[in-house]
Amino acid sequence: MRIPNHIGIIPDGNRRWAVQQGMTKDMGYNEGLNPGLELFKVCKEIGVKELTYYGFTVDNTKRPTVQTKAFTKACIDAVKMLSREDASLLVVGNTASPMFPKELLPYTKRKDFGKGGMRVNFLVNYGWNWDLGNLNQNTSINRSNIIKHLNSWDVSRVDLIIRWGGRRRLSGFLPVQSIYSDFYVIDDYWPDFKAKHVYDAINWYDKQDITLGG
Amino acid sequence: MRIPNHIGIIPDGNRRWAVQQGMTKDMGYNEGLNPGLELFKVCKEIGVKELTYYGFTVDNTKRPTVQTKAFTKACIDAVKMLSREDASLLVVGNTASPMFPKELLPYTKRKDFGKGGMRVNFLVNYGWNWDLGNLNQNTSINRSNIIKHLNSWDVSRVDLIIRWGGRRRLSGFLPVQSIYSDFYVIDDYWPDFKAKHVYDAINWYDKQDITLGG
Repeated sequence: MRIPNHIGIIPDGNRRWAVQQGMTKDMGYNEGLNPGLELFKVCKEIGVKELTYYGFTVDNTKRPTVQTKAFTKACIDAVKMLSREDASLLVVGNTASPMFPKELLPYTKRKDFGKGGMRVNFLVNYGWNWDLGNLNQNTSINRSNIIKHLNSWDVSRVDLIIRWGGRRRLSGFLPVQSIYSDFYVIDDYWPDFKAKHVYDAINWYDKQDITLGG
Repeated sequence: MRIPNHIGIIPDGNRRWAVQQGMTKDMGYNEGLNPGLELFKVCKEIGVKELTYYGFTVDNTKRPTVQTKAFTKACIDAVKMLSREDASLLVVGNTASPMFPKELLPYTKRKDFGKGGMRVNFLVNYGWNWDLGNLNQNTSINRSNIIKHLNSWDVSRVDLIIRWGGRRRLSGFLPVQSIYSDFYVIDDYWPDFKAKHVYDAINWYDKQDITLGG
């Protein structure tokens, strides 16, 4: 079976899940923590080499304060939770903005935790336009070197993107690394994560041909 | 009903269609011409303001010569066909490369044909890295101005991408304009185009919320 090297995760639907449960929207984010850990373990078990979580974006920070506080806290907690596992961890995002949580600054250079191993990237206060902001017209940009000119240079090309919550869009997720990605959408909301979702996505991915645009 | 302003078209599956019909792969491209015209007419009728066809890419030109010749001819024929309609037509791609067909050079500045009207863009020898090649680190890039720094600056943000041929990936299609696009996949191959495909996509799009990342 062909296992994707790098899986991108768009864990959408926390707010819709909360509303469905009769909670306020902001209460959904905390419910995404355990799914994040379970997903990490499933991916490690099947031999995925790199995993990128879409934490929150610069766009997201325009939401009501009660929500921005809740998803920021959930991201801080998630990164700390992952730092107790065996992983090579990196937080990527615009640290120059006040919306970037200071608690995560120590994670913005890749570092091994535990025995190291799977590369785990967490996008925090990430912006697609921030990411593209260093591309330079004096540099010859091509398929093989463009990633190293991005602000997210330490995140590799993504093979498979899995999005929860039913929406069929990238919403600014790593536009360059996603150029050739296969895109699998799960209708369930992220807090309703099941390991089966990942197995379904992997089985589907195994049947895709990979041409990288050729 | 909410109609997308700008639809992106990925007309995939010509080669698989040809093989299915017992033809050689290169013979599939010509069968994409009539679908392209029919799609144009359907989009015009429902009030779409801009339409972008994914013709061929720099990546595609690495295929066997008999195929590159066939898809290049199909693109030339398609642009000429569209120039006999009422449309504001533009061909976008890397004209500096020998793979760009000279016959299409006159179309690389937007021009009204007939009574003008719908903006119709045709990507020919397009490369995502070529498109990003003029982004300049001295410029402050943001959501509202980034498109004007692209080589495809005269192509607007895409609301809905429809891909034929079952693959769930963008394959380098306008990475910046597609940041927030909704993505609809049709399993039928492009030569089996039916107007119903577009109506199905439009009905689905009408039910999506549009947040532009917010």
